[in-house]
Amino acid sequence: MSSHHIVKDDQEPALIIANGAECSQELLGQLLEWSPFVIVLDSAIERVLELGIKIDVLLGDFDRGFDPEYYREKQYPLEIVYAPDQNKTDLEKAFDYLITKGHKAVNVIWATGKRADHTITNITNIVRFKDQLKIVIIDDHSKIFLLPPKFEKWYTKDSIISLIPIGDVTGIHSENLFYPLKNDTLTLGFRTGSSNHVAEDGMVIVTHENGNLLLMECLD
Amino acid sequence: MSSHHIVKDDQEPALIIANGAECSQELLGQLLEWSPFVIVLDSAIERVLELGIKIDVLLGDFDRGFDPEYYREKQYPLEIVYAPDQNKTDLEKAFDYLITKGHKAVNVIWATGKRADHTITNITNIVRFKDQLKIVIIDDHSKIFLLPPKFEKWYTKDSIISLIPIGDVTGIHSENLFYPLKNDTLTLGFRTGSSNHVAEDGMVIVTHENGNLLLMECLD
Repeated sequence: MSSHHIVKDDQEPALIIANGAECSQELLGQLLEWSPFVIVLDSAIERVLELGIKIDVLLGDFDRGFDPEYYREKQYPLEIVYAPDQNKTDLEKAFDYLITKGHKAVNVIWATGKRADHTITNITNIVRFKDQLKIVIIDDHSKIFLLPPKFEKWYTKDSIISLIPIGDVTGIHSENLFYPLKNDTLTLGFRTGSSNHVAEDGMVIVTHENGNLLLMECLD
Repeated sequence: MSSHHIVKDDQEPALIIANGAECSQELLGQLLEWSPFVIVLDSAIERVLELGIKIDVLLGDFDRGFDPEYYREKQYPLEIVYAPDQNKTDLEKAFDYLITKGHKAVNVIWATGKRADHTITNITNIVRFKDQLKIVIIDDHSKIFLLPPKFEKWYTKDSIISLIPIGDVTGIHSENLFYPLKNDTLTLGFRTGSSNHVAEDGMVIVTHENGNLLLMECLD
């Protein structure tokens, strides 16, 4: 792990451990193995320390009688970022921090589960960072990311793929999905592309014209 | 519990047990005590039976080699509703069923957690039933419902209240929230009213002009 915060162009994504429900130890272990830079949000540090993980940054507003300095020695060297802005979530502040430091990509765990307001806000707010940071939210059942205008990826047959619009998304076309989309419009709350799946082993292509479209790779 | 499905005007809300993450036994017990009519979705029946609960309806598309007839004897009398429409989720089909049978209100548990596509779809799809069924989604950390144009309810000081727009919501005013809204617009993914709280013991009033606005009462 780097404590110098020099971001190389080909560096693996950073890892943010947010303050929702924990993921499996297996998923956590896989991600830590590949993450050179780890940020923990606010009081999640209490649960992270129990797992014996070395982290690089502790970020939060620390507004609940919580003393971040207590962790400085336990995790030396540790950068503590005090981020009091009440108009942003701690997760957004962590994205801002990574962008400032030159990071290009981040995986986020523990961002779902527990409070539904946090879950829905964390998942949908990634649209604000569209052109600045490649964000993937991961939990034990889901891998969530925002689609570029043209998305292409190889999947095995029957992989579950859900297309979830943040608001309205128009001009959607798909190739190699079981329920194909042809110049379709999806609207959150009214018509979403949830629980589609891959028709055959091979490339899946999803294009859209306007709006913000999330892809979720899901597992039961 | 009624096996005759006669809905009285003053009847307590029905209860739908969906197929996401289980809630606490305590919450389940509280809801069952007041629910005269219980619907279970698809293979969630396997987990429900382990809890020794008597249910009224088992509804689903039963598309995964699952035999609903196996449960008929174990839960006699049990109505089995085969609902194969692939354009609707099992939860939407259960809402349709309740509306057809004359129900006015329903609580939903196990609708969040596990797959993120199911969580976000279940939470946001309740807008389709706006004028037909009073729906409340409940889990261990959250109570979620759609707001009428004028909402009023008594809360204790510091209760966490999140206002989450499904798409765009305009003309929002609030009284007795710590971060007040005054003719505000909220847009999912860009500006939401997450993690507000009640200023003083007393009535909270939230009004809005256009769009679909969810209120989430949340607990850490």
